[in-house]
Amino acid sequence: MEKRERKRLAILDVLSAGERPLGSARITDILVARGMEISDRTVRLYLQELDRRGLTENLGRRGRRITAAGMREADEARVLEHIGFLSGKIDTMAYRADFDPSTYTGNVVLNLSLVRPADITREHRRLIGRVFAKGYAMGKMMALFEPGETFGTTVIPEEMIGIGTVCSITLNGVLLRHGVPTVSRFGGLLELRNSHPTRFVEIISYDGTSIDPLEVFIRSGMADYIGAVTTGNGRIGASFREFPAESIETVHAVAARLEETGLGSLLCLGHPGQPIFGVPVGPQRAGAVIIGGLNPMSIFEETGLRIHSRALSGLCNFRRLFHYSEFRAQLDSL
Amino acid sequence: MEKRERKRLAILDVLSAGERPLGSARITDILVARGMEISDRTVRLYLQELDRRGLTENLGRRGRRITAAGMREADEARVLEHIGFLSGKIDTMAYRADFDPSTYTGNVVLNLSLVRPADITREHRRLIGRVFAKGYAMGKMMALFEPGETFGTTVIPEEMIGIGTVCSITLNGVLLRHGVPTVSRFGGLLELRNSHPTRFVEIISYDGTSIDPLEVFIRSGMADYIGAVTTGNGRIGASFREFPAESIETVHAVAARLEETGLGSLLCLGHPGQPIFGVPVGPQRAGAVIIGGLNPMSIFEETGLRIHSRALSGLCNFRRLFHYSEFRAQLDSL
Repeated sequence: MEKRERKRLAILDVLSAGERPLGSARITDILVARGMEISDRTVRLYLQELDRRGLTENLGRRGRRITAAGMREADEARVLEHIGFLSGKIDTMAYRADFDPSTYTGNVVLNLSLVRPADITREHRRLIGRVFAKGYAMGKMMALFEPGETFGTTVIPEEMIGIGTVCSITLNGVLLRHGVPTVSRFGGLLELRNSHPTRFVEIISYDGTSIDPLEVFIRSGMADYIGAVTTGNGRIGASFREFPAESIETVHAVAARLEETGLGSLLCLGHPGQPIFGVPVGPQRAGAVIIGGLNPMSIFEETGLRIHSRALSGLCNFRRLFHYSEFRAQLDSL
Repeated sequence: MEKRERKRLAILDVLSAGERPLGSARITDILVARGMEISDRTVRLYLQELDRRGLTENLGRRGRRITAAGMREADEARVLEHIGFLSGKIDTMAYRADFDPSTYTGNVVLNLSLVRPADITREHRRLIGRVFAKGYAMGKMMALFEPGETFGTTVIPEEMIGIGTVCSITLNGVLLRHGVPTVSRFGGLLELRNSHPTRFVEIISYDGTSIDPLEVFIRSGMADYIGAVTTGNGRIGASFREFPAESIETVHAVAARLEETGLGSLLCLGHPGQPIFGVPVGPQRAGAVIIGGLNPMSIFEETGLRIHSRALSGLCNFRRLFHYSEFRAQLDSL
């Protein structure tokens, strides 16, 4: 990457990290503290260029604010310098999620899908309900966002709504607060025969990808939830994780508690050292297969409707979630 | 994976590796030599089950032959036990490719895409030609396969044709024969602005995925070749590789020779230790960005036509290839 580009992105990065607008002097201070050689004058010139490109907005004396387009640009730029991006993002989101299943309070991690409400058919709703009912989703809960509303770094476009599905990284977050570290190894496509999981047919490791594997499997039409919920033969997104062998009882207890709150996601938990679906686990570890949160949204793609989904989009208060059986009523009330 | 399933797949694996049909006694010998405890009688029982499921075919005294469905099953099963599958497949195919650019003889590695000829429009042909002309494909050559023809493990279905594009792993193969080992690090989406590559916006490491990253980017609609060949702003599939720093001159010479034979793919080759588009390279290494071979096929997906593409599908004699400008004439002659 050329030097100019790097500096331009560093400025966006500073603005994207803060909650408030920042002046050029403050931005310069932060960049210099990070070891970059840059003058206040240069920062001001770059900011003018960023304004022109619609990536920042000049609020006068209050300083510069990053725009939604600038946020996306900053997000994408981070990919570049962080190979193995997703495992880092997973741990960050697990650290931020603070849902407490004993009091039903705090935030869960949400995936966001953008859809035109007019495109959602009765058949879509029926099949999505079946995915939840069969237990092929992360729990039973979902959320809706209105046009114009902001979730994470996304502004829901006009004429669209955002459908939030609970991301299974929420489990990592709750376990972390119980002192259990989770290693998220890979996302895979799990084959079902007669409604029983048999094996992973494709896998992508979290520490070698910038994009969520389940998002990729769904977008590329490789998943088959319609088969999974109609004939029992299909392919669903699942995640392979590992826990310290000694923590198995805690993992069981936490997973059971989450199940009660409508956030169950544990498909199976192995004994210490036991391979699961042929996947070996490390020494002193137990493996687990966790259902992918984005799964119900695959129904749209499988019926030929291209939607825009992003895993790990942001945090959402548990109170905002509703049971999947209310999907239609909630849609109508928007 | 349960024991029965493992044995069943082991039998398919043996049959998929050989060119000829095998009897149950020979299959038992091979499995026992691999360390599996299995009797001839058990193998015969499993074979009957595989026959019933259409995965093998009983040829009487000549033994069992694996079917196309059996081949797919065996391929998918291998994923399970080989996390990091693609880097292994890349090295295997590089080892098998024996194209010699000085005599224009031998085999190149091909990707295969299945399309209904009636679905190919004039606009598709025009845009695919532009992708080749702009240098966003691996060289200038392609191949066609007729309905019923077998390529690799794929039988081209009736009413469809196979379009072969040269896989950039061919470069690894030619370099290998010049004594240069290639490390294929990741496949990524490379952003173009004003027809200049600027940065990778998504990446997937080859040693952490069972599916080709470029195949995934194209199938999931994340690539943008139409933008790349019309406005100069788009996203194309590219691969990041590393060579020993000392071999740079050989790499340059081989790449230039391949360019002359219509198989150019080197987008850029760094100096020793020099980062490329912000991606650092290992010590004593030089990095390179190689154009993805499957790229022209993205045009179909971007115009809403879902096709089935597989990277690294098999080997193809160089003589079978034709220049992209003959695409239409070759289509008409099928």
